[in-house]
Amino acid sequence: MSKRFHKELNEVKKMILALGANVEKNVRMATDAIVSCNTELATKVKKTDYEIDETEVEIEEECLKLLALYQPVAMDLRFIIAVIKINNDLERIGDQAVNIAHRVLTMSKERMSSCTYYFDYSVMVEKVKMMIRQSLDALVNMDVELAISVCQQDEAVDNIKREAYSAIKKSMKNSSDQLSYLINLFLISRHLERIGDHATNIAEEVIHMIEGEIVRHGK
Amino acid sequence: MSKRFHKELNEVKKMILALGANVEKNVRMATDAIVSCNTELATKVKKTDYEIDETEVEIEEECLKLLALYQPVAMDLRFIIAVIKINNDLERIGDQAVNIAHRVLTMSKERMSSCTYYFDYSVMVEKVKMMIRQSLDALVNMDVELAISVCQQDEAVDNIKREAYSAIKKSMKNSSDQLSYLINLFLISRHLERIGDHATNIAEEVIHMIEGEIVRHGK
Repeated sequence: MSKRFHKELNEVKKMILALGANVEKNVRMATDAIVSCNTELATKVKKTDYEIDETEVEIEEECLKLLALYQPVAMDLRFIIAVIKINNDLERIGDQAVNIAHRVLTMSKERMSSCTYYFDYSVMVEKVKMMIRQSLDALVNMDVELAISVCQQDEAVDNIKREAYSAIKKSMKNSSDQLSYLINLFLISRHLERIGDHATNIAEEVIHMIEGEIVRHGK
Repeated sequence: MSKRFHKELNEVKKMILALGANVEKNVRMATDAIVSCNTELATKVKKTDYEIDETEVEIEEECLKLLALYQPVAMDLRFIIAVIKINNDLERIGDQAVNIAHRVLTMSKERMSSCTYYFDYSVMVEKVKMMIRQSLDALVNMDVELAISVCQQDEAVDNIKREAYSAIKKSMKNSSDQLSYLINLFLISRHLERIGDHATNIAEEVIHMIEGEIVRHGK
């Protein structure tokens, strides 16, 4: 492949890393908003999601251009296809940040002073943010081991979701007047879980690309 | 492009339609299982999901082979990239059918004779099944109008989810001893909603491919 191709491919790598950083920023803002029911922060997440959407479109067009112009094969081809799919997962992580922002906005209307129950998602949040960052590091550094470690972290995220479920369900029994608030608090765990799933998809895509082997379905 | 390329591309079209039919079958089994809490049917969905996973892998490999061997450009290139992404959405619809099957299995343990409340998802189920079928018809027939109509149907699905939420929340207030059952009943609406989202993604991909224009983000 020509030098020019590799230069442009490098640009695509930079673009996907920048998108990743932007997505991670929105996840951080959305999850920071949970703790303090910060509606301003939640609104900002909703308003800036279009930037993520636009970058996704640009990256895909860039990948299509590279495929059409240089007709890469073997590893270069697999890399570009992997980027197209990973790009898609990042955009959907952005959507989950918006979903969390929605929950915060709904909860802010319903959270009453009488409702003392709160599930602390901070550990879960740190875990999924780490998974996003590491899955993208694994992509650009072609690091299979790191990708595998991301996949392994997913179970811990799922476990916290189960803890949240039990704790919130218990709280529902005792305060049935706070059901809307508690259902929204519970749904946040599912949005975070989905972010972990998308990061796992990214990591699996990296492994698949490098090993030319499908691990996606637990094989 | 050579005759041989178009023959092989036709094979890929047949494969993706067959995958679509298989996914739809699992959605049907999973949703039929809800009504009667049919654990046998739910277990079958979980057991047959690997077939969907395997076909997804085969289709992607076939697409990569076509890209590497024939180095298509323009519409043929866009079509193959669209198939790779749609393939991924179909596999994830299969995962949602498994999620519904899990709900049914959990509910079957918890559904007590005293719990008379039941939300009828049949309309929502019919809608999402129709969306899957039409989105794939739109792909193979390059039918933009049909794809647009699929996107428009998504709102009706979201509305039913909201109805389910209100109704089930009301029921939670009156029967707090049935919380697990009711939460699972509610989560089914979210799995169905996600199936509708994936069908919408497929339809948007078709429009994007044909019109070379990004409608994915409501532009």
